[in-house]
Amino acid sequence: MHQAIFSDYIDVELVKCSAEDMDVVFSARVSTEGERTRDYGVMLEDNELSDRDKGLINFLMRERHGTPFEHSYFTFYVKAPIFVWREHMRHRIASYNEESGRYKQLEPEFYVPERDRKLVQVGKPGAYEFEDGSNNQYALVSTSLRRMCEDTYSEYLKLIMNGVAKEVARMVLPVNIYSSAYVTMNARSLMNFLSLRQNVEGQTFPSYPQREIEMVAERYEEIFEYHMPVTHAAFVKNGRVSP
Amino acid sequence: MHQAIFSDYIDVELVKCSAEDMDVVFSARVSTEGERTRDYGVMLEDNELSDRDKGLINFLMRERHGTPFEHSYFTFYVKAPIFVWREHMRHRIASYNEESGRYKQLEPEFYVPERDRKLVQVGKPGAYEFEDGSNNQYALVSTSLRRMCEDTYSEYLKLIMNGVAKEVARMVLPVNIYSSAYVTMNARSLMNFLSLRQNVEGQTFPSYPQREIEMVAERYEEIFEYHMPVTHAAFVKNGRVSP
Amino acid sequence: MHQAIFSDYIDVELVKCSAEDMDVVFSARVSTEGERTRDYGVMLEDNELSDRDKGLINFLMRERHGTPFEHSYFTFYVKAPIFVWREHMRHRIASYNEESGRYKQLEPEFYVPERDRKLVQVGKPGAYEFEDGSNNQYALVSTSLRRMCEDTYSEYLKLIMNGVAKEVARMVLPVNIYSSAYVTMNARSLMNFLSLRQNVEGQTFPSYPQREIEMVAERYEEIFEYHMPVTHAAFVKNGRVSP
Amino acid sequence: MHQAIFSDYIDVELVKCSAEDMDVVFSARVSTEGERTRDYGVMLEDNELSDRDKGLINFLMRERHGTPFEHSYFTFYVKAPIFVWREHMRHRIASYNEESGRYKQLEPEFYVPERDRKLVQVGKPGAYEFEDGSNNQYALVSTSLRRMCEDTYSEYLKLIMNGVAKEVARMVLPVNIYSSAYVTMNARSLMNFLSLRQNVEGQTFPSYPQREIEMVAERYEEIFEYHMPVTHAAFVKNGRVSP
Repeated sequence: MHQAIFSDYIDVELVKCSAEDMDVVFSARVSTEGERTRDYGVMLEDNELSDRDKGLINFLMRERHGTPFEHSYFTFYVKAPIFVWREHMRHRIASYNEESGRYKQLEPEFYVPERDRKLVQVGKPGAYEFEDGSNNQYALVSTSLRRMCEDTYSEYLKLIMNGVAKEVARMVLPVNIYSSAYVTMNARSLMNFLSLRQNVEGQTFPSYPQREIEMVAERYEEIFEYHMPVTHAAFVKNGRVSP
Repeated sequence: MHQAIFSDYIDVELVKCSAEDMDVVFSARVSTEGERTRDYGVMLEDNELSDRDKGLINFLMRERHGTPFEHSYFTFYVKAPIFVWREHMRHRIASYNEESGRYKQLEPEFYVPERDRKLVQVGKPGAYEFEDGSNNQYALVSTSLRRMCEDTYSEYLKLIMNGVAKEVARMVLPVNIYSSAYVTMNARSLMNFLSLRQNVEGQTFPSYPQREIEMVAERYEEIFEYHMPVTHAAFVKNGRVSP
Repeated sequence: MHQAIFSDYIDVELVKCSAEDMDVVFSARVSTEGERTRDYGVMLEDNELSDRDKGLINFLMRERHGTPFEHSYFTFYVKAPIFVWREHMRHRIASYNEESGRYKQLEPEFYVPERDRKLVQVGKPGAYEFEDGSNNQYALVSTSLRRMCEDTYSEYLKLIMNGVAKEVARMVLPVNIYSSAYVTMNARSLMNFLSLRQNVEGQTFPSYPQREIEMVAERYEEIFEYHMPVTHAAFVKNGRVSP
Repeated sequence: MHQAIFSDYIDVELVKCSAEDMDVVFSARVSTEGERTRDYGVMLEDNELSDRDKGLINFLMRERHGTPFEHSYFTFYVKAPIFVWREHMRHRIASYNEESGRYKQLEPEFYVPERDRKLVQVGKPGAYEFEDGSNNQYALVSTSLRRMCEDTYSEYLKLIMNGVAKEVARMVLPVNIYSSAYVTMNARSLMNFLSLRQNVEGQTFPSYPQREIEMVAERYEEIFEYHMPVTHAAFVKNGRVSP
């Protein structure tokens, strides 16, 4: 018998990447020098960016020369509820391979927000702001989600045990069930994602993302900053406008 | 009080299109003639394709010259359950505007398969075949879905009435709830969709779509055939391989 | 015998479009209303936008909600020199069918800038500014181009007359020879093109386009403004930042 | 004084890649296993594919499940004449950074076909075949190209020395001048390129590429085969149809 699990995290792990600030410098320099200036043998010993390199990256970001940021790639393993995937997959400049509800029996893990997730929406469509929920409101959310997830997952199992196809049985499952996927994006697409799916002080264009996809973006940003610190700094400095 | 509605249809309506076989002919002819040969004033009086025009369309399809099929556009209004949208939006060469569960309260309309929907899956992953379900199996599916939809929608309403944000309350809703969207695709993307989301005799590459997205594809195909009959015939004749 | 023609224009003609401000309103409204609100029978009699509609378009532009601008399409016939096409085709979110130098003998029409085209480049890479050329400089440009075009086109013809394949003979031709293409873009891609390929007062992000592709953009903009005046006004009002 | 160089090669070098057969296996397995199965620590010691892994890759290729091939990336440095770039950049699912004729003075290196390049085109548009040229034809091609390249490059230099902007001066240059670029593509896009830009025995859909872009494809294919041998073998086995 399966026991439902209730979780409040979003899991983002870096599977692999081929991404460093030098990618930007070298691909941009081909415009003005016309030569293949990159030599990885040398790079491994001395991949320090000069001030001129850093200035170039900032210039490209500021002037919205986006293509030099397309040669750096990140592949993530992400585990998130379906309602997050629904938003994530609207980003068409990315590659996805997601767990299939047609091919495999889904695991009973469901998202329930943590206590300090803001629950009350104020303001108007397109610019909602969120406020804390009361204890009572949180209890309602938590209880409703838990009970409904257990009930619907029981029905799911019953249908499967009675020989109903997985793709039919899953129709009963709620959108807070977890699903996992491989996601590959280049640095330019990633910055576009960050600019739209985070609400951060200092960004030129405000965004109003749902908190749960913002959690994905926050984790993406940490990984991005770690591997491409100069590019990330230029992104932040220039108002988090994706080039 | 809202009363849940259970439906077994997929709604596809053509909102608008700018799509006719002549689009293909004229855009392809620019390659060999280099002139703007299209004159809409003349076209309106005489838009009959010559045998040479029809031969050209068949040639382009057979030789996979895909770009001339990109100048014809269809905008659809589609109403389908969320699990269909999940598959549909994997098609990145399309434009979508979907109903928002963050901005509006979702209507209690849910998909329940009709009696003759095949319910039993045999074979192996990637090449499943489906067989009829028993009366008992169908009753189980229908009963489970109806009860769970009513229960979860009640919880959804209760959360909203208690001041919980719509984007949180909706986490409890199942993937068979209907959602609607505007979808715009060009004829090339549409043929790609048809080739992957239908299982039709005579197609060169077999596909194993879930029945409900195949219903979307069937309706798209009727509209496509109506507006671009020569292109559609060439698509079918050439094994339904998207160019 | 072919006589070379020297021209200083860029030809942009609208072949067809399915583009009006109401497209934006209707596709955006599906988010909040979830219904197909568009009814073309009614539209034809009364397609006046209300103040609320206009406000919605401005809101979408300002908040960078780009997808509602993807359901409006323009197909252009464009005739421009090859060096312009080289830049134009870097825009990947568009559909192209171009005259083929492999399938047809190219016509001897060549671009020579008009007298008041600024010829002198000052400043530094990425932010060049241009100044008027002297009479002597213009005479040099005009004479060089004319003579080289005549010479190379003669060689081109000679090679073809001696049985050399067109795709080989064309290697001798200069990048100012004209070529024509069908180009299809949606309104969102078009605004992106306008924001990058024009240098207009009041734009939030400066651009430094080559004059000849700016001429294409100017003509696109006129057509865009004519068919989608409210969308265009919102684009201009919001600093010509593509949503 | 610059001396023109005449070359008959296409240069393709791998700058970097993150591409191995295991990428395909791991991203595909997430569909059926829903777990992050990749662990690079283990991989480095034992990255041998099992027969089951190889079978999976062949299955994905045959059934046209294209997305698992999108997580492997190649960045190339390519040096080729402009007429090759014109075709290459029609492939929109790739990232490009090319040498700029606006920012730098172009080097006088020009493409002249080698003696055994087939020069005579027979058959009809869309399915041309090529035959050997005579000595006389080759001499004509070689002489014309060399003389015109020298003449036009002299004019180019003269204009620049007289203060004319590089972006104007370059209008006189022919399409066989070399230009270089960084090109990044994933394995799926790369197979699409190979299927369209090579004419190889055994391919399901014939292609009729210009020889010079086929030279690019041939070199890409060597690199692809080296890094993803199982994927490459499956591509060839399945008629070189891109998934």
